[in-house]
Amino acid sequence: MYDGAVQDLIDELGRLPGIGPKSAQRIAFHILEAESEDMLRLSDAIRTVKEKVKLCELCFNVSEQERCAICRDDKRDTSLLCVVEESQDVMAIERTRAYRGRYHVLGGSINPIAGIGPEQLHVRELLTRLQDDVIHEVILATDPNLEGEATATYLGRMLGATGIRVTRLASGLPVGGDLEYADEVTLGRAFEGRRLLNG
Amino acid sequence: MYDGAVQDLIDELGRLPGIGPKSAQRIAFHILEAESEDMLRLSDAIRTVKEKVKLCELCFNVSEQERCAICRDDKRDTSLLCVVEESQDVMAIERTRAYRGRYHVLGGSINPIAGIGPEQLHVRELLTRLQDDVIHEVILATDPNLEGEATATYLGRMLGATGIRVTRLASGLPVGGDLEYADEVTLGRAFEGRRLLNG
Repeated sequence: MYDGAVQDLIDELGRLPGIGPKSAQRIAFHILEAESEDMLRLSDAIRTVKEKVKLCELCFNVSEQERCAICRDDKRDTSLLCVVEESQDVMAIERTRAYRGRYHVLGGSINPIAGIGPEQLHVRELLTRLQDDVIHEVILATDPNLEGEATATYLGRMLGATGIRVTRLASGLPVGGDLEYADEVTLGRAFEGRRLLNG
Repeated sequence: MYDGAVQDLIDELGRLPGIGPKSAQRIAFHILEAESEDMLRLSDAIRTVKEKVKLCELCFNVSEQERCAICRDDKRDTSLLCVVEESQDVMAIERTRAYRGRYHVLGGSINPIAGIGPEQLHVRELLTRLQDDVIHEVILATDPNLEGEATATYLGRMLGATGIRVTRLASGLPVGGDLEYADEVTLGRAFEGRRLLNG
């Protein structure tokens, strides 16, 4: 539709997640009209990420060095290991400031329909870490959905034999939410996991 | 939050229009995980657009050459000139296939609050074109909003003295729309502009 370079840019932008044809066009024209300096910085940021960022050799979190900042931090409690699906989950947990252990990023969840089994995830490396390091507790923090639950169940069974304490994040009502709008599975879980207040 | 390069990318993406912090993070991780080749193509597309695309010297539409494809096309009716705000408007009108004349892109609309007057738009160049070329009709196709109407009114008055036929795109009910949901201004315009069917 447009002259070569503009249409090329619209096409490339339209392939990004959550960007439809109209957004792609709006962003492309923003790029056209914005300061060259700013837009070349965006172009370079994409290139730099592809060239410099890799996965931490230990936990598979994103990192610019062989080991990520968390694995390099010797103030972290190395006896706690939190297993998550993605690097984004690491950041979400870090934001809570409630956890001071290390992480292991699986790189996804078990999903037989998509052909993803334990072999496609960093499960083997998790077992190696558990053999090599002194770890007292593995916290399974996969997503609270079908695939995440299946992954947690699989890992829970597999780690049962190791004698290591294996826990799963609590399911229940989200804080700030409204009981009447909670779905029945969440509400059911909240009942199952109810805590004694006057104990 | 993230290691240098990833956070840089999230920051740069978050400055694009319509991309909030969550989208920026999602897109950044998509870029991290996607094929390097595809993402370097995106990086290059941004760079190429900034380096190669400029504005047509005649009509100010985006173009990779001194003159845009429409101004170079000698099959276009050079006696018709359609004045629009942005290059995107050119493409929208081209998609209708209803117009075979040329364009003049103002580069915005008159907006005193934002400090944009006729001097900030390509109005002077429009007058030069009307003096240089034989133009029989100027179609004012600025947006049907406050700024676009003000711009059309301003241009209409200014061109009144030239003797050239000046028209404005019709306002009325959008085709495929629902009369009962039309806003009152649009419905009022549709009444004002009603056409005789058995004429």
